[in-house]
Amino acid sequence: MSITDPQGFRAAGYAAGLKASNALDLAVVVNDGPQYVGAAVTTPNRFAAAPVYLTRDVAAGGRVRAVILNSGCANACTGERGRADAARMAELTAQSLEAEPSEVMVCSTGLIGSHLRMDLLATAIPEVCRQASDDGGDAAAQAIMTTDTVDKQAAREGAGGYRIGGMAKGAGMLNPAMATMLSVLTTDAVITPDLAREALAAAVGPTFNRMDSDGCQSTNDTVILLCSGASGVSAEPAEFTENLTALCADLVRQMLADAEGASHTIAVRVRGAASEAAAEAGARAVTSSNLVKAAIFGRDPNWGRILAALGTLDEETCPYDADSVTVAINGTVIFAAGAPSDSTPPDLSGHDVSIDIDLASGAAEATVFTNDLTHDYVEENSAYST
Amino acid sequence: MSITDPQGFRAAGYAAGLKASNALDLAVVVNDGPQYVGAAVTTPNRFAAAPVYLTRDVAAGGRVRAVILNSGCANACTGERGRADAARMAELTAQSLEAEPSEVMVCSTGLIGSHLRMDLLATAIPEVCRQASDDGGDAAAQAIMTTDTVDKQAAREGAGGYRIGGMAKGAGMLNPAMATMLSVLTTDAVITPDLAREALAAAVGPTFNRMDSDGCQSTNDTVILLCSGASGVSAEPAEFTENLTALCADLVRQMLADAEGASHTIAVRVRGAASEAAAEAGARAVTSSNLVKAAIFGRDPNWGRILAALGTLDEETCPYDADSVTVAINGTVIFAAGAPSDSTPPDLSGHDVSIDIDLASGAAEATVFTNDLTHDYVEENSAYST
Repeated sequence: MSITDPQGFRAAGYAAGLKASNALDLAVVVNDGPQYVGAAVTTPNRFAAAPVYLTRDVAAGGRVRAVILNSGCANACTGERGRADAARMAELTAQSLEAEPSEVMVCSTGLIGSHLRMDLLATAIPEVCRQASDDGGDAAAQAIMTTDTVDKQAAREGAGGYRIGGMAKGAGMLNPAMATMLSVLTTDAVITPDLAREALAAAVGPTFNRMDSDGCQSTNDTVILLCSGASGVSAEPAEFTENLTALCADLVRQMLADAEGASHTIAVRVRGAASEAAAEAGARAVTSSNLVKAAIFGRDPNWGRILAALGTLDEETCPYDADSVTVAINGTVIFAAGAPSDSTPPDLSGHDVSIDIDLASGAAEATVFTNDLTHDYVEENSAYST
Repeated sequence: MSITDPQGFRAAGYAAGLKASNALDLAVVVNDGPQYVGAAVTTPNRFAAAPVYLTRDVAAGGRVRAVILNSGCANACTGERGRADAARMAELTAQSLEAEPSEVMVCSTGLIGSHLRMDLLATAIPEVCRQASDDGGDAAAQAIMTTDTVDKQAAREGAGGYRIGGMAKGAGMLNPAMATMLSVLTTDAVITPDLAREALAAAVGPTFNRMDSDGCQSTNDTVILLCSGASGVSAEPAEFTENLTALCADLVRQMLADAEGASHTIAVRVRGAASEAAAEAGARAVTSSNLVKAAIFGRDPNWGRILAALGTLDEETCPYDADSVTVAINGTVIFAAGAPSDSTPPDLSGHDVSIDIDLASGAAEATVFTNDLTHDYVEENSAYST
């Protein structure tokens, strides 16, 4: 159940000393081929971190031999020195693996605005590369953790026997004290560069991109797909994409379950929308409402806040008639035809809460996941950097 | 220092029994003329409450004799019955004052989705109207409070001796457990309907509309201006607008100071912007970041979160070059030229925190105010309706 399940991959985790706790904080994932196909989806944030720019360039080159990842420092908003540090991480990795620096992606996660300890990485990167092995997936998954309480890993088999593996840390917007959601996915299927890009984009859309804890967007979020082709099995595009999406959904479930500071997982489903974009906008309006999230923490079915959140969207973004909207919480309709329903308030004592909104203006739908707003969220996020 | 300071106005506050605490919960503001000019700015929320629709219609009519306001129930998302209840409030008020229902504005604040106790209001509205007096401003200001700890009132004198008075409750988005920010402004200046509308819109823009606690938008927010003309002084448009803006700013300061659950007031100023809209969008991106707000609660100058928030805006909404942005906290520059500044971390122990962002892409600026995200915010907003 790890990134080293597929053939052709080695990995390792190492304690470089970037974390004060001396926990694992450096990971490498090596693709031994015979193919070196890679693709990446990165944050749209305009203050994207130095390693994000580097990884985009490597993705454009299309040939990826390895990914080097560190926790304990985001290397974001670090200027020229940060860009040089990210480039040096790729160089050190390439030297250790007898690859080109242009074939090495870099990911960092941790505090924004502090510089990497390159003195430590100069010895640690060769060492983690030396240790990379075909059972190193677990250690790599542990090394990218920040405030995660458990590592997140998954694996699946596809038609003809190819495999997909994956690891993830954080939950980007779910547990944003970490500043970042990182994920590396591996497969030994024979995949073209185009299919790798398209399948990754298709898989990320309804999974990683539909988690939203607090509307905050990381400077470092990155999802990478590496393809070794070592199984010799040519994957059928639709089947591979479906399989990859299911694997991402599995990782997302693990992130939702581990979102620290949260006592509820909230699924906001908007259906009857004029378009998928309208449905997603409607769902995000609700998942980004502190008032809705605080009410659910308090097990208080204060549904007026759901409508107030939905009401902030303009007609163009999300067409609906306010008198035709129906809202249900945990299956109980609490608002319909412009007025409160005469129903027993839904029980919010369970961990999972569903908010179901029917806009009655079309056939599209989307579901966005979030967590409640809790004292632990405030505590964790008010005392992170110092 | 109240809405009854200007000549030609009477007001009262009354305990109708809408609040379980038996505190004052019903207010009336009566304009005795000789002019009955009125204007209103209301929430753009698409689930606007029944009284908001009624008040807009009265504003369109242009002649306003009175405003009836209740706390304890928002009368929002209440359907046909809610609209009938709001209309009945106007009727009862009009009957008591020998006015037309079409001359009475209505405001409600409290929980969304519950119905008004019209049985109580049927006797309470005639009584509060009977009690209206020229020293009733204080009681009216108290009667519109929800979770406010103090009433908010202000008054000013204008050129030639006309007066402006004002009261406000809540803080809309500052203390959103209330669901609403309401304000009634009065003046005895001689004002044309056009000037009333224009001056109110101009005054609300940089004051009430620049407070943002959690990005949540109320279904009931309303600001009303009533003009009696009783001083006989014709106000000069620019001077009146400036004076009214200053009065609104005074009320905003009182709301910021009373934002329950907050331990810091945060002023986010964005300058060097390509347009005022870009500056405001930049400032709102920061004021709506839970991560920024939680960090300031923790007195943690975790400035990377400010940049991450700013980075979420697209180029069209807010043009800037990431490497040219400068950020200062409490006067200390902490980020410039794409990299951290080598400065002593700013002290965040005081109540007021300033975040100053220079986008270096123009000459426009805007300041948006917010509060920090605290345990008290979560507590208050997780246990409101039940």
